Amino acid sequence: MKILVMNGPNLNLLGEREPSVYGDNSLEAINERLKTQAENAGAEIDFYQSNHEGAIIDKLHEARTEFDYVILNAGAYTHYSYAIRDAIAAIKIPVIEVHLSNVHSRDEFRHKSVISPVCKGVIAGFGEQSYVLALNYALTDKF
Amino acid sequence: MKILVMNGPNLNLLGEREPSVYGDNSLEAINERLKTQAENAGAEIDFYQSNHEGAIIDKLHEARTEFDYVILNAGAYTHYSYAIRDAIAAIKIPVIEVHLSNVHSRDEFRHKSVISPVCKGVIAGFGEQSYVLALNYALTDKF
Amino acid sequence: MKILVMNGPNLNLLGEREPSVYGDNSLEAINERLKTQAENAGAEIDFYQSNHEGAIIDKLHEARTEFDYVILNAGAYTHYSYAIRDAIAAIKIPVIEVHLSNVHSRDEFRHKSVISPVCKGVIAGFGEQSYVLALNYALTDKF
Amino acid sequence: MKILVMNGPNLNLLGEREPSVYGDNSLEAINERLKTQAENAGAEIDFYQSNHEGAIIDKLHEARTEFDYVILNAGAYTHYSYAIRDAIAAIKIPVIEVHLSNVHSRDEFRHKSVISPVCKGVIAGFGEQSYVLALNYALTDKF
Amino acid sequence: MKILVMNGPNLNLLGEREPSVYGDNSLEAINERLKTQAENAGAEIDFYQSNHEGAIIDKLHEARTEFDYVILNAGAYTHYSYAIRDAIAAIKIPVIEVHLSNVHSRDEFRHKSVISPVCKGVIAGFGEQSYVLALNYALTDKF
Amino acid sequence: MKILVMNGPNLNLLGEREPSVYGDNSLEAINERLKTQAENAGAEIDFYQSNHEGAIIDKLHEARTEFDYVILNAGAYTHYSYAIRDAIAAIKIPVIEVHLSNVHSRDEFRHKSVISPVCKGVIAGFGEQSYVLALNYALTDKF
Amino acid sequence: MKILVMNGPNLNLLGEREPSVYGDNSLEAINERLKTQAENAGAEIDFYQSNHEGAIIDKLHEARTEFDYVILNAGAYTHYSYAIRDAIAAIKIPVIEVHLSNVHSRDEFRHKSVISPVCKGVIAGFGEQSYVLALNYALTDKF
Amino acid sequence: MKILVMNGPNLNLLGEREPSVYGDNSLEAINERLKTQAENAGAEIDFYQSNHEGAIIDKLHEARTEFDYVILNAGAYTHYSYAIRDAIAAIKIPVIEVHLSNVHSRDEFRHKSVISPVCKGVIAGFGEQSYVLALNYALTDKF
Amino acid sequence: MKILVMNGPNLNLLGEREPSVYGDNSLEAINERLKTQAENAGAEIDFYQSNHEGAIIDKLHEARTEFDYVILNAGAYTHYSYAIRDAIAAIKIPVIEVHLSNVHSRDEFRHKSVISPVCKGVIAGFGEQSYVLALNYALTDKF
Amino acid sequence: MKILVMNGPNLNLLGEREPSVYGDNSLEAINERLKTQAENAGAEIDFYQSNHEGAIIDKLHEARTEFDYVILNAGAYTHYSYAIRDAIAAIKIPVIEVHLSNVHSRDEFRHKSVISPVCKGVIAGFGEQSYVLALNYALTDKF
Amino acid sequence: MKILVMNGPNLNLLGEREPSVYGDNSLEAINERLKTQAENAGAEIDFYQSNHEGAIIDKLHEARTEFDYVILNAGAYTHYSYAIRDAIAAIKIPVIEVHLSNVHSRDEFRHKSVISPVCKGVIAGFGEQSYVLALNYALTDKF
Amino acid sequence: MKILVMNGPNLNLLGEREPSVYGDNSLEAINERLKTQAENAGAEIDFYQSNHEGAIIDKLHEARTEFDYVILNAGAYTHYSYAIRDAIAAIKIPVIEVHLSNVHSRDEFRHKSVISPVCKGVIAGFGEQSYVLALNYALTDKF
Repeated sequence: MKILVMNGPNLNLLGEREPSVYGDNSLEAINERLKTQAENAGAEIDFYQSNHEGAIIDKLHEARTEFDYVILNAGAYTHYSYAIRDAIAAIKIPVIEVHLSNVHSRDEFRHKSVISPVCKGVIAGFGEQSYVLALNYALTDKF
Repeated sequence: MKILVMNGPNLNLLGEREPSVYGDNSLEAINERLKTQAENAGAEIDFYQSNHEGAIIDKLHEARTEFDYVILNAGAYTHYSYAIRDAIAAIKIPVIEVHLSNVHSRDEFRHKSVISPVCKGVIAGFGEQSYVLALNYALTDKF
Repeated sequence: MKILVMNGPNLNLLGEREPSVYGDNSLEAINERLKTQAENAGAEIDFYQSNHEGAIIDKLHEARTEFDYVILNAGAYTHYSYAIRDAIAAIKIPVIEVHLSNVHSRDEFRHKSVISPVCKGVIAGFGEQSYVLALNYALTDKF
Repeated sequence: MKILVMNGPNLNLLGEREPSVYGDNSLEAINERLKTQAENAGAEIDFYQSNHEGAIIDKLHEARTEFDYVILNAGAYTHYSYAIRDAIAAIKIPVIEVHLSNVHSRDEFRHKSVISPVCKGVIAGFGEQSYVLALNYALTDKF
Repeated sequence: MKILVMNGPNLNLLGEREPSVYGDNSLEAINERLKTQAENAGAEIDFYQSNHEGAIIDKLHEARTEFDYVILNAGAYTHYSYAIRDAIAAIKIPVIEVHLSNVHSRDEFRHKSVISPVCKGVIAGFGEQSYVLALNYALTDKF
Repeated sequence: MKILVMNGPNLNLLGEREPSVYGDNSLEAINERLKTQAENAGAEIDFYQSNHEGAIIDKLHEARTEFDYVILNAGAYTHYSYAIRDAIAAIKIPVIEVHLSNVHSRDEFRHKSVISPVCKGVIAGFGEQSYVLALNYALTDKF
Repeated sequence: MKILVMNGPNLNLLGEREPSVYGDNSLEAINERLKTQAENAGAEIDFYQSNHEGAIIDKLHEARTEFDYVILNAGAYTHYSYAIRDAIAAIKIPVIEVHLSNVHSRDEFRHKSVISPVCKGVIAGFGEQSYVLALNYALTDKF
Repeated sequence: MKILVMNGPNLNLLGEREPSVYGDNSLEAINERLKTQAENAGAEIDFYQSNHEGAIIDKLHEARTEFDYVILNAGAYTHYSYAIRDAIAAIKIPVIEVHLSNVHSRDEFRHKSVISPVCKGVIAGFGEQSYVLALNYALTDKF
Repeated sequence: MKILVMNGPNLNLLGEREPSVYGDNSLEAINERLKTQAENAGAEIDFYQSNHEGAIIDKLHEARTEFDYVILNAGAYTHYSYAIRDAIAAIKIPVIEVHLSNVHSRDEFRHKSVISPVCKGVIAGFGEQSYVLALNYALTDKF
Repeated sequence: MKILVMNGPNLNLLGEREPSVYGDNSLEAINERLKTQAENAGAEIDFYQSNHEGAIIDKLHEARTEFDYVILNAGAYTHYSYAIRDAIAAIKIPVIEVHLSNVHSRDEFRHKSVISPVCKGVIAGFGEQSYVLALNYALTDKF
Repeated sequence: MKILVMNGPNLNLLGEREPSVYGDNSLEAINERLKTQAENAGAEIDFYQSNHEGAIIDKLHEARTEFDYVILNAGAYTHYSYAIRDAIAAIKIPVIEVHLSNVHSRDEFRHKSVISPVCKGVIAGFGEQSYVLALNYALTDKF
Repeated sequence: MKILVMNGPNLNLLGEREPSVYGDNSLEAINERLKTQAENAGAEIDFYQSNHEGAIIDKLHEARTEFDYVILNAGAYTHYSYAIRDAIAAIKIPVIEVHLSNVHSRDEFRHKSVISPVCKGVIAGFGEQSYVLALNYALTDKF
């Protein structure tokens, strides 16, 4: 099994950006932890971060032949990128939507996700554990 | 550690009600599985289901002194019960919101949750695994 | 054939509550009349009234194995109870929505019914005849 | 007693148009059945169908001196013809609004009726039985 | 004169729940104070609290023959319970709507009250004094 | 100078239809009065009434070569007929919109006129005097 | 008969302000013309202009005992001054709303008048003739 | 203690304006009664009424150094005057919002108060008793 | 193959009506051109124009047995005629929606088409070429 | 060159009113600073503050013949005074809209300015520097 | 003549992505066909596809000096990219908007195009023929 | 001090694109002028333009360690890029939002800025002077 963990805009600043909202750990630290978790389960895992909507779409396309599962935190693109939504719908592998913070207790515009309807499921509000739980699920899902 | 798993309206019909949406397992079967998971982790777990909004509120009040964590699938009350929202806000123990189906890919009225803003986090769309992941998190959370 | 006539909140006050809107007859008188009509047609009929949303849901669940048809005036719950809507969708027997008054010529909030989309049909505005017509239909419907 | 059954746009295609939604019977067959029902009750009945909003208004005006009751399926005009609404309000005889299908479980724009507020009552979702029930009521109503 | 003071969902937690918003006093303490005030004025007073929407409706029905006045803090039901609204409209005794906090300076959803249009009046924002003022008015009102 | 006075749906019932809103005079009586007023001013005047949207459009087209001015009470079509609006915009002669009643103090849907933006001006609320004032203006306007 | 012509904010600049929209004549010239028209009809007329919302309200109050009729161009206050609306509703003499331009073919915010529902009628779009027509009506109205 | 009772637009017409809505008493009579109530409690009281939004703001500014409490019925300004709202927020003494009628059972535009969020509390629907209750509270409040 | 080209309200004025928006050619000239194009391709073609909504529906019904394809410019009915929409859905032959102008760069109300969802496709903004392209497609489509 | 700096409601309280939002300086201090800046540039400058909407309009009218430039902080009137908007549009000299705070990061109702569309430009969020920058621009603008 | 055919996000997956909606042909196959069509007409044609909003804008800028016509399927960017809209408005060569599917019969968010108002015209719903028709038009347009 | 001036989509076409809206100067000319202004003040300045949302985010991240101040004209991204908004919020250096034109007097969609709430301030409508004023402020701000 091969899993891709994707992070969208501004998530490269994790640990530095508003730590009270997003936590103290850097993205690298989180990825490290996920790597261990995947390898312990005998799975391959890869990571990708970009601030570019188009690059995220390109990567999703690529993923459809190279990965079995995608875990995606699309950052602010979550709230308006119908192009990423179409990319998720176009590829056939399952995509899990994750968020560090509980997006529903923040700004109004963060309450709406345009990608949720085409994702397998949503996990939000558990800090880096959101990724851990998603990976957990992906590793045991038989589709 | 003591965990309460609460289910709201119509979830007692699980397994029987629209299996293509909600899965084949009965609520009892799911609870059985969660019980094993909790006990393996050395935690106590209890279960409650009601179709009554008021009863769910009463139980949440009760929970605040008897449990450390609540996992709640409030069913359709999720979308309009500000009274349950107030109950969650009033008690101090963390509550995780779970849904069997991906509520965002269903009817418009299911896209809005009035309880999300006061919950710890949200897990939706993984069938009975939504509960398993929530329990997973609760068992390891140090608050 | 076994038919259940259900009435929701405040309908126990019929005859007493705003007679210009809801008519002079008590709920008992209406039920009496429906009983005669059903028995003349060789059908069994039963009656249930509650002001509790949860109790209405419980009764709908029960009805799914004990009755062939439900005639439901959900009162004000008509306009916001997604939980009752889910209960109607979950049970497989047909439910007819009835209203004494023409809800469309009254307050704005009464123009929207959240249960109509999952009911067999709607009859509104004919006073107690709304029930008579619904029963009429149920007695002759072959599904 | 003299009753007029009016049908609006596209209802002349009944039986041919989307039978899964509107049923297999032609408008003629339905009218035949209503004729028998009315005559058995000793009432006169007449029928009118038009795709023209203006013609429906003309006929409603005519009806006010020649009929005691109108049963009206205004088809799609139901959802925007304030001119038909004004015609119903202007004549003094009662008008019952009927629909073959349950309009509330179909497209959004069919959820709103601009004529309901000025009609006696509404019956929707029972196929041709919607007309039968309306006639049933008209035949026994003492105004 | 006989007065009923009713409290809705979560108000049983008063004193414990978010004291910065709702004050430090328990509901019992407030009721005690109102009792003295009523008895000093030579009136009878009774108290009722429930988290159940249906139970509040049942009690309002009961109140119509046993009390002269109702003082009601419907908690979160204030914002969506059209069933409680109908109950208030159905009984003929006057009902005063009270709130501890100034609901208009809190969450958006608390700005709308569906029961205000059928209440005698509204008093909000004075902490437990909201009840005192309402009782004050009830004791001197001649209807 | 040649002036056309056009009346839309249901205005043929004037005098008979809700006299408290529309006045006691028949359309014929009003037209008679306008005829005298026009002839006294040495102008020709003609009248047209139809309940058919299409017929009103046909007549407006015809008017563009045969009349110098149109006075139009489009009845309920005022509120949704973008086709009549286009007809008014297409012909080059000025059109004055008139209403017997003050449409702004009636139903919500009567507050919006889709034809106002392409009319010369609007006169509403003066009963049959609305027509008199419009004719008055037309007779003295030099374009 | 005594008539008051009132003009609201910015109308003192008439003739100078956007002549393509409002015409070339000054307010004085218009008033002069109205004065002649009123005196020819044997009526008294008076004029008032203010940019102050409160002053317009004061004057309306005063008018209720000193005038028989008010012709009011409330300028931009038309679109939001509920205080002027209440003043018009509070005094018992009839008020005619006039506008120089066709407000419905201009900015969106000018399409809504909060005072129309309490005015006798509305005349808009005829330049200074809007006042002439209104005066015309007032002089011949018998209430 | 020094209290200021302020009344906004059209309240000078009290007793004369729509008595069925606002009661029979003049503003002077109400003020007289409040004066007695204040003096009996050993407090000073003063009164101010204006139809001018700006004058109300000026007076609120003045009040901040001269009074301990303001009781304000802002009339129709309640529904749109963000300037008065800012004035209330700017001064530090508490302001109680009062209304004679139950604004929530009247026109739609009266359901929204832009000043409520910055007031201490709201009392509406008790006729002149609304002022009495507010004064009552102010006299006993210790801030 | 037999094709019907239908034009709705005000299109009979083409060439004369706002030429800057709709072009200089008359409808006859456009039809002539389409006739040549169809005949060159060995197809039959017919033309119909009406300002009457009902007549357009009648013709669509007729077309379902006599034509293989419809090209429809429904004019302003495009934006509100749900009755025409139902007629298109009811007949089984394909209908192409065309517009002379780019409706999306004009008035707001022209941005929404209620018939698009049931049409085969849409071509807008190419002047008379919109028809030419639609015919082009119809002539080569094999369904 | 002659410049007028105008301030609307509540700005006379500057320095005293919510200093965390509006800064510590009084309006006098700010004006003093602007005076120096203007005089250094060889320009005349004048100042005006009022809480009265009408007075601001009067002053704007006056300004059109006496000043070359207006710098306006309309306070809360910014958000609803269409009358001030019309006054700005009516006078021909340029008006710059300024705000002390970044109105877009405060209450929702402050996000909309009804005067922006008719102002030369907008400067917001720089504290008293907002005025300085505006004056800066005015002093060097050649129109 | 030189024509550029541009395709936006996810269109590189054509033939593979939801064939029931988008058809079986790959983008290469479609482009091949368009190439033949252009060359037969003696025109040059070029092709560009990108999932990057910025790259589409860059290419549109480039096109303004190198091409005479652009045919653009902006994919999901159609529905929110105001930046692409500005790019189209900024370059002076005509742009035709095309869509494979009938966007109006799909998800709500696909009903609105933010680029339509600045495009020459729109062709939607004809599968790859949408491009063919657009090219057809471009090849014969004289601007 | 080191300042970064950033320009978003389509601003590279300045001078060429709709000069009546955006002015005649090229972006290079404006930058040249700003360079002189900065250097005269002894500050360093750098420039960046991109049509790519992701590139703007990348650059903002970079800026947080290399610059003291950002002046940003985000072009059309202003109206929907929550990702750029998050980037501005994530970096700690102040960002001033500038626009050449008065965005509030243009298309509806340009009235809303999603980045204003996280910017230091906004300057719009002064052509290239908008940049000059922003730089002016940045050069003298002490944070």
